Amino acid sequence: MASKAKIGVLGASGYTGAELVRLLLTHPRVEIALLTADRRANQEMREVFPQFSPYALPRLTAMADVDWLAAGLDLVFCALPHATTQKVVKLILGQVPAVKIVDLSADFRLADVAAYARWYGHEHHAPEIQGQAVYGLVEVYRRDIKRAHLVANPGCYTTCAQLPLLPLLKAKAIDPDEIVIDAKSGMTGAGRSAKEEMIFSEVSEGFHAYGVGHHRHMAELDQEFSRAAGRAVTVTFTPHLVPMNRGILATIYVRGRRGRGAEDLHALIAKAYAREPFVHVLPFRQVPQTRHVRGSNMTFVGVAPDRIDGRAIIVSALDNLTKGASGQAIQNMNLMLGFPETTGLNQAPLFP
Amino acid sequence: MASKAKIGVLGASGYTGAELVRLLLTHPRVEIALLTADRRANQEMREVFPQFSPYALPRLTAMADVDWLAAGLDLVFCALPHATTQKVVKLILGQVPAVKIVDLSADFRLADVAAYARWYGHEHHAPEIQGQAVYGLVEVYRRDIKRAHLVANPGCYTTCAQLPLLPLLKAKAIDPDEIVIDAKSGMTGAGRSAKEEMIFSEVSEGFHAYGVGHHRHMAELDQEFSRAAGRAVTVTFTPHLVPMNRGILATIYVRGRRGRGAEDLHALIAKAYAREPFVHVLPFRQVPQTRHVRGSNMTFVGVAPDRIDGRAIIVSALDNLTKGASGQAIQNMNLMLGFPETTGLNQAPLFP
Amino acid sequence: MASKAKIGVLGASGYTGAELVRLLLTHPRVEIALLTADRRANQEMREVFPQFSPYALPRLTAMADVDWLAAGLDLVFCALPHATTQKVVKLILGQVPAVKIVDLSADFRLADVAAYARWYGHEHHAPEIQGQAVYGLVEVYRRDIKRAHLVANPGCYTTCAQLPLLPLLKAKAIDPDEIVIDAKSGMTGAGRSAKEEMIFSEVSEGFHAYGVGHHRHMAELDQEFSRAAGRAVTVTFTPHLVPMNRGILATIYVRGRRGRGAEDLHALIAKAYAREPFVHVLPFRQVPQTRHVRGSNMTFVGVAPDRIDGRAIIVSALDNLTKGASGQAIQNMNLMLGFPETTGLNQAPLFP
Amino acid sequence: MASKAKIGVLGASGYTGAELVRLLLTHPRVEIALLTADRRANQEMREVFPQFSPYALPRLTAMADVDWLAAGLDLVFCALPHATTQKVVKLILGQVPAVKIVDLSADFRLADVAAYARWYGHEHHAPEIQGQAVYGLVEVYRRDIKRAHLVANPGCYTTCAQLPLLPLLKAKAIDPDEIVIDAKSGMTGAGRSAKEEMIFSEVSEGFHAYGVGHHRHMAELDQEFSRAAGRAVTVTFTPHLVPMNRGILATIYVRGRRGRGAEDLHALIAKAYAREPFVHVLPFRQVPQTRHVRGSNMTFVGVAPDRIDGRAIIVSALDNLTKGASGQAIQNMNLMLGFPETTGLNQAPLFP
Repeated sequence: MASKAKIGVLGASGYTGAELVRLLLTHPRVEIALLTADRRANQEMREVFPQFSPYALPRLTAMADVDWLAAGLDLVFCALPHATTQKVVKLILGQVPAVKIVDLSADFRLADVAAYARWYGHEHHAPEIQGQAVYGLVEVYRRDIKRAHLVANPGCYTTCAQLPLLPLLKAKAIDPDEIVIDAKSGMTGAGRSAKEEMIFSEVSEGFHAYGVGHHRHMAELDQEFSRAAGRAVTVTFTPHLVPMNRGILATIYVRGRRGRGAEDLHALIAKAYAREPFVHVLPFRQVPQTRHVRGSNMTFVGVAPDRIDGRAIIVSALDNLTKGASGQAIQNMNLMLGFPETTGLNQAPLFP
Repeated sequence: MASKAKIGVLGASGYTGAELVRLLLTHPRVEIALLTADRRANQEMREVFPQFSPYALPRLTAMADVDWLAAGLDLVFCALPHATTQKVVKLILGQVPAVKIVDLSADFRLADVAAYARWYGHEHHAPEIQGQAVYGLVEVYRRDIKRAHLVANPGCYTTCAQLPLLPLLKAKAIDPDEIVIDAKSGMTGAGRSAKEEMIFSEVSEGFHAYGVGHHRHMAELDQEFSRAAGRAVTVTFTPHLVPMNRGILATIYVRGRRGRGAEDLHALIAKAYAREPFVHVLPFRQVPQTRHVRGSNMTFVGVAPDRIDGRAIIVSALDNLTKGASGQAIQNMNLMLGFPETTGLNQAPLFP
Repeated sequence: MASKAKIGVLGASGYTGAELVRLLLTHPRVEIALLTADRRANQEMREVFPQFSPYALPRLTAMADVDWLAAGLDLVFCALPHATTQKVVKLILGQVPAVKIVDLSADFRLADVAAYARWYGHEHHAPEIQGQAVYGLVEVYRRDIKRAHLVANPGCYTTCAQLPLLPLLKAKAIDPDEIVIDAKSGMTGAGRSAKEEMIFSEVSEGFHAYGVGHHRHMAELDQEFSRAAGRAVTVTFTPHLVPMNRGILATIYVRGRRGRGAEDLHALIAKAYAREPFVHVLPFRQVPQTRHVRGSNMTFVGVAPDRIDGRAIIVSALDNLTKGASGQAIQNMNLMLGFPETTGLNQAPLFP
Repeated sequence: MASKAKIGVLGASGYTGAELVRLLLTHPRVEIALLTADRRANQEMREVFPQFSPYALPRLTAMADVDWLAAGLDLVFCALPHATTQKVVKLILGQVPAVKIVDLSADFRLADVAAYARWYGHEHHAPEIQGQAVYGLVEVYRRDIKRAHLVANPGCYTTCAQLPLLPLLKAKAIDPDEIVIDAKSGMTGAGRSAKEEMIFSEVSEGFHAYGVGHHRHMAELDQEFSRAAGRAVTVTFTPHLVPMNRGILATIYVRGRRGRGAEDLHALIAKAYAREPFVHVLPFRQVPQTRHVRGSNMTFVGVAPDRIDGRAIIVSALDNLTKGASGQAIQNMNLMLGFPETTGLNQAPLFP
């Protein structure tokens, strides 16, 4: 085997950063060469994430202290908060244009910088770079990703909703004006910041919706659903928080077009993913549970008929930190660096 | 104060039985005179539910050993499994016709015995009694309940969905053919029976849907929604299980009719419950959390606009064991025995 | 009934504050006249704790804005952070000497101000008031509490450990040099402050010890155990965090003296609490679970023999927010205001 | 690489069976050739554990239907209930003497068949085989295990307690008569059987001890501690249940001998495990959390001084399904089949 690719993780003190490190540690083709975390700079990774105590890892660095040229990185994962990434990517590409980047934030997901400004309330900080960014839903954009320098890794909710819906929209098999996505996420989706509403006793033993009627993830859904359908698509989407760490489950209500019943929709989805390593379609009428994909890069999809004729209920489940973030990011990395797509991502789910 | 009413709880070894006992213990107008539990007969309640160790309670009895005449009960709660209750109620009313009964099972909820047979797969065992049963959703049938001898206490999911939707259907304010109810319940809704799928490690740290496309609660929804709307109504309904003990949250997607927006729907609901002690409508755009009604008889309802014009998202939350079962049963008892409706039900929610 | 006593709660935005409000709302002899919360001043209580949405409660006030004379309070609960309370109590008593105070912090628990300085790292801010403070473990100091103006409400861990051990130490029935207390607490014991180590994903699905070998609660244990034993007692004490909201369980390892076996120890504890309303001793060999006292003011105690001759294992359980904090505080209030001790504290535990 | 070793898993429908399958699926030197589960015979593994849906695995077989000769297995894991294994192992070794066996039950852990009969209440069913069994605590018996045909995989609690204590007992560094082990386990340690006390609502949001004063794991501790100390050792041991899936944490109270302080004990343990791949000793005064070893084969050990002079508090943590059961079983398999010991066990912990 040739020498290993040198990888950097920016924002290694957050959950998606830790998940990247977890997966990269057993990836046979890479070495972790750089870890940054501004607020925890100069600490060891084990102080921030004790699970890594037995491992030799680079000390956490402040972004400002990185010498990008000397670092000689092949690829960088950006697991930074939204809005800061645009500037960081611009800076890095200015210094080391050859480095490849997988960005886990939302900063480069919207191709239309005007849409970005509308949803995020400020101008895009790197519009000139946006054009190079490829949207990293591998099952759809695999070919582009292989050639990309900058990949915008999709959001967790949106990956979970897109995977089952895109084949149906492309096939014009469902009414694009009657899609309701009721999504539920574990708490790691909210990150690791210390906010009152995130402390254990505010979250355990209860359930609630948030961002009702308006949530930034909608912009990403609008873009991809509209591309797939070939016309503007606006869906109803409500996120909820489940007292669990990992997992997203989307319950999706659709109406078939031109007499397509639930079984037809199931067949379409099953066919679309027949050869995909990370999308598994359950037998008709079976629906997935988030716990059965925990810690793996798998998405499970199920389809059942509604009792109302012509309607179907689709349920998809993934681990928001893995296929919903860091696992998919490594899937992108594998393509960008020319490795087999599943390298380092073959862990079976951890259940129970 | 006159002497206390004598109360029996049939099926006291289940969770709704325990919740009845919890609430009755501090109810100033009643005494617990009989507790039955066939499989735990002759045990003390503290052996079955150690939280009652400090309390003097009747020993658990087998149903077959009860002398109904000698017991001299004023009211009996049936917290028995579905399907056995019809026979039990028939037996009791045959021996002591004056006793009042609140049944927490589904056995007397469907006025149409043919519908019952269709949904439950067997003939109704007491069709001659069904006609006397009053559906116990207090906020709707208060007047009938006061005069009833037999009250069919509503289901937990259905109470949570009916309270916000009934005023809208009555006012013909929403399209009755486009209602999607995505409901999430804590585990006590599944009862206390020992099944593999209910053990801790199968339930914690995960989320899933069940009964997708077909669930018996639909029959109850059909009946009440159709009554309210004055025409046949069939809704889409999906239940899910949340890794928590108590609580139901229903996220309900509706489309306003005749230009009614979310704010109009909110106003209709708020007006309908302005004087109700156990339904609290939050300010427009705010949505409830299950944890904030835990252990209380309250239902919290919120309404927010969807980003799709003309659509609204309604969220309601209650404690499935209290307003969703035993609290509502005591609310019914209070009416049937002539007590003030809120007697014994004034506990504030237990949060955190 | 005479007019209701006017009660203030200082620090109403924390969990012990909310628990006081929960219990006071159904207490028949008091009215909540003042709620303070500096960081949430001028907000409604429902904004801070939505479970109180249906209740009329005073708006939250900043401490500095309270006019103590005009407020005309009969009793004040201080649920403020440690170290600030000494100054606050001094200020209040300076302005309204007749007001009675129950302090839920540790600020007045140590009779010896030198010990306070040693454990807390700073001089006591109100040493002249310390002498008036009565330690509020009702089962031990009931008589003094009735006459007290200032009661220092015991800590949650220490209440759980003291109740079973004090009768044994007083009777010289156990070796005071061989006591090991392994204590486990739910997360509400850590309060409501937003710290990284308290967020859901850092706490759920795991278990850990903290403060190993050194924890401030030890000072309170030392004081009360030494008083009871009539000699200096130093115990081994390790606190742990359980992924649950409420509850403390202490597993206590002791060695009987002069041939006292576990059964003798059980008899001593059972006799000591035979008439106590809030301490329930289980039958010999049975041990309690925290869930069976949830939301109630009860402490459950069990004793079992160790397999090593002469040693016993004692297990006690209480709800850290109720008997471990706010419930015990109201028990103290009842005594101080001349109400029956159990008034407003008769809720049965909430299980499941 | 030579052809892969053929592996059987008996009892594949339980949690340790599933954990074996999870780990074996990515083990490069083996193939899963046989899965048995009597009650689920003829079902697919995905029906019993949906997380394996994407994998090709043998159909579940009844034990009675296995043709041991034809199966040609190299090694069999027995993950069967206690007491049935002795007969099964006898049967298998009778038919295919060359097959190697790792037994995860307690059936072959006690070298003394009389002690077995005393603790388990019945005669040993295969005393003639017991003598061949090697106790599979790899860090202690590595040399014997390499030559063994039958390995008795240690218990989860006992592994967690033995790893830190054995080096101290061997060095006579602690008083063997004053050891208190307060252990806490996640729910998967109780297996997958459907019992009322294991359902979610009986376990979540609470904490309790069980088997107080008497627990079968003590026999295993007695045997190994006595071997290490060179004299009879009897410890105090109390197990507790934590509302979490995976993890065991043992808080161990010891007294140093001959002036050995906590720091000396820490040094002894650290030295003993300096080269062990699966035991990590934290810096002095730091203690581990179960969540930081989740899903990995690591044991983390910490030592802190008690405030009582001469006493120390040791905390060790492992994942009961991995190092506490199936991971350690595979570690044993690696040695028995001549693979590098860490093969297939290099997954980093899954946190959060």
